[in-house]
Amino acid sequence: MVSINCDMGEGFGIWRLGDDAALIPHIHIANVACGFHGSDFNHMRATVRLAKAHGVLVGAHPSLPDLQGFGRREMKIGREELANCLIYQIGALKGFLDAEGMILNHIKPHGSLYGMAARQPDIAEAICDAADIFRVPILGMRGTLHESVYPARGHTMVAEFYADLDYADDGSLIITREHPPVEAEAGTARCLRALREGVVATVGGRDVPVGHESICIHSDTPGAADLARTLRQALRREGLEHAA
Amino acid sequence: MVSINCDMGEGFGIWRLGDDAALIPHIHIANVACGFHGSDFNHMRATVRLAKAHGVLVGAHPSLPDLQGFGRREMKIGREELANCLIYQIGALKGFLDAEGMILNHIKPHGSLYGMAARQPDIAEAICDAADIFRVPILGMRGTLHESVYPARGHTMVAEFYADLDYADDGSLIITREHPPVEAEAGTARCLRALREGVVATVGGRDVPVGHESICIHSDTPGAADLARTLRQALRREGLEHAA
Amino acid sequence: MVSINCDMGEGFGIWRLGDDAALIPHIHIANVACGFHGSDFNHMRATVRLAKAHGVLVGAHPSLPDLQGFGRREMKIGREELANCLIYQIGALKGFLDAEGMILNHIKPHGSLYGMAARQPDIAEAICDAADIFRVPILGMRGTLHESVYPARGHTMVAEFYADLDYADDGSLIITREHPPVEAEAGTARCLRALREGVVATVGGRDVPVGHESICIHSDTPGAADLARTLRQALRREGLEHAA
Amino acid sequence: MVSINCDMGEGFGIWRLGDDAALIPHIHIANVACGFHGSDFNHMRATVRLAKAHGVLVGAHPSLPDLQGFGRREMKIGREELANCLIYQIGALKGFLDAEGMILNHIKPHGSLYGMAARQPDIAEAICDAADIFRVPILGMRGTLHESVYPARGHTMVAEFYADLDYADDGSLIITREHPPVEAEAGTARCLRALREGVVATVGGRDVPVGHESICIHSDTPGAADLARTLRQALRREGLEHAA
Repeated sequence: MVSINCDMGEGFGIWRLGDDAALIPHIHIANVACGFHGSDFNHMRATVRLAKAHGVLVGAHPSLPDLQGFGRREMKIGREELANCLIYQIGALKGFLDAEGMILNHIKPHGSLYGMAARQPDIAEAICDAADIFRVPILGMRGTLHESVYPARGHTMVAEFYADLDYADDGSLIITREHPPVEAEAGTARCLRALREGVVATVGGRDVPVGHESICIHSDTPGAADLARTLRQALRREGLEHAA
Repeated sequence: MVSINCDMGEGFGIWRLGDDAALIPHIHIANVACGFHGSDFNHMRATVRLAKAHGVLVGAHPSLPDLQGFGRREMKIGREELANCLIYQIGALKGFLDAEGMILNHIKPHGSLYGMAARQPDIAEAICDAADIFRVPILGMRGTLHESVYPARGHTMVAEFYADLDYADDGSLIITREHPPVEAEAGTARCLRALREGVVATVGGRDVPVGHESICIHSDTPGAADLARTLRQALRREGLEHAA
Repeated sequence: MVSINCDMGEGFGIWRLGDDAALIPHIHIANVACGFHGSDFNHMRATVRLAKAHGVLVGAHPSLPDLQGFGRREMKIGREELANCLIYQIGALKGFLDAEGMILNHIKPHGSLYGMAARQPDIAEAICDAADIFRVPILGMRGTLHESVYPARGHTMVAEFYADLDYADDGSLIITREHPPVEAEAGTARCLRALREGVVATVGGRDVPVGHESICIHSDTPGAADLARTLRQALRREGLEHAA
Repeated sequence: MVSINCDMGEGFGIWRLGDDAALIPHIHIANVACGFHGSDFNHMRATVRLAKAHGVLVGAHPSLPDLQGFGRREMKIGREELANCLIYQIGALKGFLDAEGMILNHIKPHGSLYGMAARQPDIAEAICDAADIFRVPILGMRGTLHESVYPARGHTMVAEFYADLDYADDGSLIITREHPPVEAEAGTARCLRALREGVVATVGGRDVPVGHESICIHSDTPGAADLARTLRQALRREGLEHAA
């Protein structure tokens, strides 16, 4: 039983990224950017409204303070400072959720913050410090500090599988600056196999174990909307769909 | 019966402004900057904690998006866009209030936003659009659109008197880039007269009517802490003190 | 004898705007954004290199400080402060021109700054204050303060005709948030008529006089590259092409 | 024969840092912030003019893109991207130097950029990539990559001694968030000993070798101006003063 989650609202000012309107009908939960790697007060309002109109649940997608680098620049930041940085962003999103009568569903750290939290205890703890205030699940990856730190701090971790990223032989994700195109049928088959057999084929041809409650699709991956539609139909057909 | 309010937390990054620690023991309510004209996630956390430690109530002090200009640059901004801009800031502050178990007490627009709302209906309406979500009083000035628009939209307006600014003969405030020093006894006497007689002497020597429920002192006015202490003692002595 | 000019390099961070690579072969001069309404240090370097590779001359396209609003937000700004703001941006672009062994060809103010300079003497003067340092022509519009102030201050004004914007009956431009599509043949015919007869048909069906030495095409106008190619071929065929 | 150099113009918007006006009469060269860790277009203009009025030479003091963190946050940044970031800042400063008829005297990387260049070859190379364009000396530290990389790339390195920072037993600087106060006579004596004997006493009581052509004083160190005046008088008296 899995949901489909998608990063959304990652434009800024006049600039757009990804086709949120095409994807939103096919996903269950949206990770909404909070203005520190993408988005601003206008994009956030519009994205929350778009999610509401489609019955999609909204979580916060906070980032390191790095708009110009899209939150992909790793940086040294203390635990307390990072917690403050996240509280600011999540609080701002909550303002828009309050405006629409919606609740905060989860937190999913963005970009380098996600990756750093997988390896650096202080970063994972800072995410928990912020999550302590908002009391919602955190999306993360099995086999990393996400899995050990978040639950140890009393937070539910929702494990993710990446529908549009390749896995290395050691089970880690291969993150590229521009996401490669995905083909809907092949991507769906890979997701279904991951669900049924609990494995995914790596770029090296090995099968590595995966376990997850949510499947992530990036809105800026070419073919994202087709994949989401095909995948959701398959999940429903197979009785594997879960709302959140 | 009046409170003393003060703009606080208006540093940014390494930079400081005003002596918040010296003022906080003497005020009732703090207008905390939200990162768009001053402050950032660290200053906001520290300021909310400082207020909590002194039993001071906290309101949001949101601004036009103008960090480099300290929110003093008037700009053209549409009503919906401005409302979004304010929701973002107030929501972010609420995150820090949630963290400390405090509630949002009020909203006080900053700088040019305050002045524009006094004269431009769309700006005052946008402030109400944001206040609709958070349901707290708005600080403002008698004799301006604040007084007509906020209550017409169902919001309580808390009228302010400025302890450290001069009034022009038409009753309007004279806002200067750097606030002139104030002398504690003279400033207190002026405030008490305003309370008892409902008038203040203008720079031209006339008496103009004022009516107010809160007295504002700027943290960057030289002598601000002395004035606040002297004024608060006088208010208490005269039985004119009101918590918020 | 006219050139074709185009605003370029108006992406930011991960975000793109307009198809600069498709347009650059067909234009004579590029107005390169300087980081205050669009662009950043990476986009500027890439855009200057792209221009160099195609033998296109580069001018500065500075803006009011308004990245989130794409420089389209009018704001109050003093003459000295604005001049400083422009010197910063133009100087930064010159750094990249120095890196590529190119010279600064001209200055073209962006967005609201362009419009404000057409009507407010202090704004036009501030642009001249900055241009005094760099000693290059300024692109502007006939029938506005551009035409009177820039030459009075000793600066050459290069007058523009807008290939992809409609003209109102009073001869002023109709500026829209999103530029409407243009059809290459019709747009070219309109430009050629403007050149030969010195008039353009307004949205109201009148002919108003225009005079110009350069034709502007916006890179984010749908059909911009087709229009530029068709127009440039026509200019060459008619012997009306001018390098800069 | 040494000069005294000082970081200057490190305010931002309404905020100030250090007493530049008190220090400027006593120094030889100013490292002027370029807007990425401190300063903005107004502070840069004012600082360049202040330096000119006192016959002080001006160099660029560029930073990682980190205004909120005052350039003290280490971050991962590619060599090409960093070079672009530096060219932007140095070019911007050159605009103000052009405005005042002054030349760029040198480059001194700021904060974490300075420290990273001491240890990471790619960072030191990126600084050289930018310096290749402007052809001026780079201020740096003996015993680090500064000393090997800058000259290998054909750039003059001007070695610094820090008058107001403690040295660890391994000869490295102890950099603190807030600089401790310095006493003018003791600080001057330490500088003179470093010049005559080529050594400085560490916090552990050892003498470690130092060699340098310039002495750095931080403008935000308490007592900075007194130290600068006393030190400069001593250098002049001893015939050790060098203009740049």
